[in-house]
Amino acid sequence: MPKARSGRAPCLPSEIRLLPIPLGNEILPGDSITHGLLASLKQTRLRFEAGDILVIKHKIVSKAEGRIFDLNTIEPSAESLAWAEEYKLDARVIELALRESRAVIRRRNGVLITETQHGFICANSGIDVSNVDGGRHAVLLPQDPDLSAAKIRRELRKATGLSVPVIITDSFGRPWREGLTEFAIGIAGLKPLRDYRARRDPYGYKLRASVEAIADELACAAGLVCGKLNRAPACIIRGFHYDVGAGTVGELLRPPQTDLFR
Amino acid sequence: MPKARSGRAPCLPSEIRLLPIPLGNEILPGDSITHGLLASLKQTRLRFEAGDILVIKHKIVSKAEGRIFDLNTIEPSAESLAWAEEYKLDARVIELALRESRAVIRRRNGVLITETQHGFICANSGIDVSNVDGGRHAVLLPQDPDLSAAKIRRELRKATGLSVPVIITDSFGRPWREGLTEFAIGIAGLKPLRDYRARRDPYGYKLRASVEAIADELACAAGLVCGKLNRAPACIIRGFHYDVGAGTVGELLRPPQTDLFR
Repeated sequence: MPKARSGRAPCLPSEIRLLPIPLGNEILPGDSITHGLLASLKQTRLRFEAGDILVIKHKIVSKAEGRIFDLNTIEPSAESLAWAEEYKLDARVIELALRESRAVIRRRNGVLITETQHGFICANSGIDVSNVDGGRHAVLLPQDPDLSAAKIRRELRKATGLSVPVIITDSFGRPWREGLTEFAIGIAGLKPLRDYRARRDPYGYKLRASVEAIADELACAAGLVCGKLNRAPACIIRGFHYDVGAGTVGELLRPPQTDLFR
Repeated sequence: MPKARSGRAPCLPSEIRLLPIPLGNEILPGDSITHGLLASLKQTRLRFEAGDILVIKHKIVSKAEGRIFDLNTIEPSAESLAWAEEYKLDARVIELALRESRAVIRRRNGVLITETQHGFICANSGIDVSNVDGGRHAVLLPQDPDLSAAKIRRELRKATGLSVPVIITDSFGRPWREGLTEFAIGIAGLKPLRDYRARRDPYGYKLRASVEAIADELACAAGLVCGKLNRAPACIIRGFHYDVGAGTVGELLRPPQTDLFR
């Protein structure tokens, strides 16, 4: 991991680098993400180092896992058809989103916010038709993104000898704020939350209400180098001192009984 | 701005660097943030470069602007006292949060979510008693964080000759997710949102629902190097190709009439 350089004040935390990993080839069902990324890295000057974190946009993971759905095989219900008609949406996507959900959180103004089978609350159960094949197929979220992350982590360890935490991300909207940001939806090898509550600030004041969603901040940082229009669906985050741990995305999901906004 | 290095694939977006700026000295009311940060940079090997973005945690901005409140001068209402008693909170902080709000969004289970005068929806109107002086004073949000950002940007241009966008941040909680992340609360010199809706993905599919909250992702990335327990309340983000523009934080705030979660 990078050390503070000489000449800097001793309190200076070290620099963090966000290193995009381009992926030249299309990922197809059955492909190995790990091998794809390692092959791409070989063509650049990049290689994994101790302390690196790997962040991957979920779409290539979903594609590799065959979580692709032919929209023409879907028969929307009358309700989905009527609603889609009203707001000029694709009724098949609405129907699929409902099938992939365990609860509808809001359905209003043409926006469908669901709780997915995993417990994520997002638009259309995270189903996406962009960056697939021009609108014929939809990509679903991975069935168990923590497991997907753990698998890639295991393969990376085998190939590189390094223990690299893996975060899988998706872009979600947020209440009250415009625009989407990246969120962690699958985690392996790091603790997603950093709890400052037992610690004191430099003034000796005991910090309350101070749990930082590290994994979501890492996801957002990665979002800056993994754009929607380039072919860098993954990146290395280098220099961030994460807390090693099993880590599951479930730790980031607030239980309904303490949530004020369902 | 960094160029793609030779030897890399041409499609590779460039690396982004997050460079923390330590601040040795305490910021006091009336101090200049700009001069403080520039003095800190002088002691390191860092200097601003063309294309850099400056991200600053709001607390030092609030302190410099004198947005500090002596909690002992506050007389909580009977209602604030009763509620604070029930949940073992500081009634003065609750009272101050209510005064700084224009609406109460939720008040339940000891959690007070308000809409601030600026339109931010967050706990306790963003009032914070950590990292101040051990609990006697509270720090409020800057009165007009866009204006604060513009002022620092103007001073930086004067001192360095460079046009550096400035983002001021705070940590907010989120519905449905555990933990806090950083959010942009003041912006100068860049467009906070990137709109992909008119563009097509590499498959020719027209992107919908694809507006990225760039400023919030930059805020989160900065949060990784500006920890709660170190004295680096600001950082430089280098290598991100932002969209130049006036930019106000208001663009990030969803109007109540299209918001589904108030």
